[in-house]
Amino acid sequence: MSATPVTELGEFGLIDKLTSQIKHHHQQTIKGVGDDTAVIASPDKDIYNLITKDLLVEGVHFNIMYTPLKHLGYKAIAVNLSDIYAMNGTPTHVVVGIAVSSKYTVEALEEIYEGMLLACNKYNVDMVGGDTTSSISGLMLSVTAFGTVNKDKIAYRSGAQPGDLICVSGNLGSAYSGLLVLEREKEVFKANPDMQPDISGYSYVVERQLKPEPGKDVVELLKKLEIIPTAMIDISDGLASEIMHITKASEKGAVLYEEKIPIDMQTAAVGHEFKIDPTTFALNGGEDYELLFTINQSDYEKIKDQEIISIIGHITENPAQRDLVATSGNIVTLRAQGWDSFRKE
Amino acid sequence: MSATPVTELGEFGLIDKLTSQIKHHHQQTIKGVGDDTAVIASPDKDIYNLITKDLLVEGVHFNIMYTPLKHLGYKAIAVNLSDIYAMNGTPTHVVVGIAVSSKYTVEALEEIYEGMLLACNKYNVDMVGGDTTSSISGLMLSVTAFGTVNKDKIAYRSGAQPGDLICVSGNLGSAYSGLLVLEREKEVFKANPDMQPDISGYSYVVERQLKPEPGKDVVELLKKLEIIPTAMIDISDGLASEIMHITKASEKGAVLYEEKIPIDMQTAAVGHEFKIDPTTFALNGGEDYELLFTINQSDYEKIKDQEIISIIGHITENPAQRDLVATSGNIVTLRAQGWDSFRKE
Repeated sequence: MSATPVTELGEFGLIDKLTSQIKHHHQQTIKGVGDDTAVIASPDKDIYNLITKDLLVEGVHFNIMYTPLKHLGYKAIAVNLSDIYAMNGTPTHVVVGIAVSSKYTVEALEEIYEGMLLACNKYNVDMVGGDTTSSISGLMLSVTAFGTVNKDKIAYRSGAQPGDLICVSGNLGSAYSGLLVLEREKEVFKANPDMQPDISGYSYVVERQLKPEPGKDVVELLKKLEIIPTAMIDISDGLASEIMHITKASEKGAVLYEEKIPIDMQTAAVGHEFKIDPTTFALNGGEDYELLFTINQSDYEKIKDQEIISIIGHITENPAQRDLVATSGNIVTLRAQGWDSFRKE
Repeated sequence: MSATPVTELGEFGLIDKLTSQIKHHHQQTIKGVGDDTAVIASPDKDIYNLITKDLLVEGVHFNIMYTPLKHLGYKAIAVNLSDIYAMNGTPTHVVVGIAVSSKYTVEALEEIYEGMLLACNKYNVDMVGGDTTSSISGLMLSVTAFGTVNKDKIAYRSGAQPGDLICVSGNLGSAYSGLLVLEREKEVFKANPDMQPDISGYSYVVERQLKPEPGKDVVELLKKLEIIPTAMIDISDGLASEIMHITKASEKGAVLYEEKIPIDMQTAAVGHEFKIDPTTFALNGGEDYELLFTINQSDYEKIKDQEIISIIGHITENPAQRDLVATSGNIVTLRAQGWDSFRKE
């Protein structure tokens, strides 16, 4: 029997391979694997149900040294709700699985739950069950989120059309720059445990890393503006990776303009400090949980003055085209080097 | 800050504590934590949606030394479907989370998926998504299952009434006796790796441990017999623990008769070999994934000759009563010593 290391395929290649044999038995199953959520018809013909699941694994997705447990619980819920919003939907319920080693106390678990319930209450979501069990080592959070969407307003990854404007909410790269700061302070602390971590001046980017907010405000804004995105995805793995998903699913190309990519001032400052171009944070950093979406050009007037939305490019006919027009004027082809938990370091 | 070890509360005490602060925001939420599944109203007023989640953690729920990966995948789906059947429902969809360390190859993951899809296809369930990620150590499977139930046929844990007959499907204790055999062969193998494990003569109990089947046949039989259970639960932690759940939720008592508890011949033989009363396997072993349910006495005639159903006792008025009438004639009070992943050994 052959033995292929998982690293050889990477996360997306692995998922493609594993899920290739899936058969559907129910006509209610509108969409299985391959978008931000699964889509299931409901008895109300105007409403689709949405289901998504995301795992957070200690040592892979978070480092317990600098992650407050309450924030971790909040984030575990937030990243799942983000997938529901990315379908232009509204989250309604979550179920929660926790596996913990004996190093975690009851009080630690209570903090995690407190964070999870804080997110649930803020986003009007009911926690309706789950499973709590021990593990041999470390902590793992497994959340499944449910929501609904009006059938006529659903935004798949696959609907982008040539000429559509590519938009993004908020700003990008801040979560990754926050991670860099936290990692640096961890090393300082390990070298000298008497040193207190200094994250003053970095509070915005650190909060973006530790306590992301899902795109409820964006979905509500789009509704108010009467815009239905032609395609949408949340930015969990970095802009380059998400643009690849949208263009691949839509079988179209894309041109992005570096100067249009929204970068926060603190993110730019961290980039300067670490001598890394902050555009790299935006393209490959991930975990911003902003929404990336495409809209018909006819919606331009409605959206152009919205503060939380940036228009960063457009969709093209050629599926092979994934161009970034750099501020220098050079054109570079985007590669998805987004975060992949299976990637070899 | 105080530091209470999780072992001090046990699994059920921990869940009670963690979930005590949950608030529901949606009137569609019929039942949250506290039964085999969550129950959510659907746009069809006659239909409720059911949601359940179960984790399987390496080193806690399974030992990879003697668990074929295909069986493991099958079991991960089966134990979740079991919870849907325990509500008298029909499973329709699953989503699957897998966290794996680098010791697992692509081929290993394909075997797990093959087993999962075998169960999905057998039970007419659509796999519609999930998350696959790396872990620092070991393998963890997190499955969430969905189903539906006719509102008038739902079986909660809480509906048992005095005089109701207590029934169980199949036989009990076989999964645990299979585990004992597998653990013994593991020790033999560790002592002398040239010895091949000998599980001939134990194939039934070993299969019950490694590849349990959820209670689809029982739910279909009840439908055919036009019986709606007054209460139902699946036997994951052992008969004693599940009887406790039903009597506690129903605020009633129970009397069980040891001689009525169905024990398979191979299970009895393993008990003899290991010098353990097989009733102990049934009461405290767990993982049989049979259904335990109560019915009104008026349904007795319908069920009394059904081969796969045993009537093992009845419900009483007194919530403090949990009696087992032993074959010897002695009456012992049942204690839930069912499997608890947090229990100190």
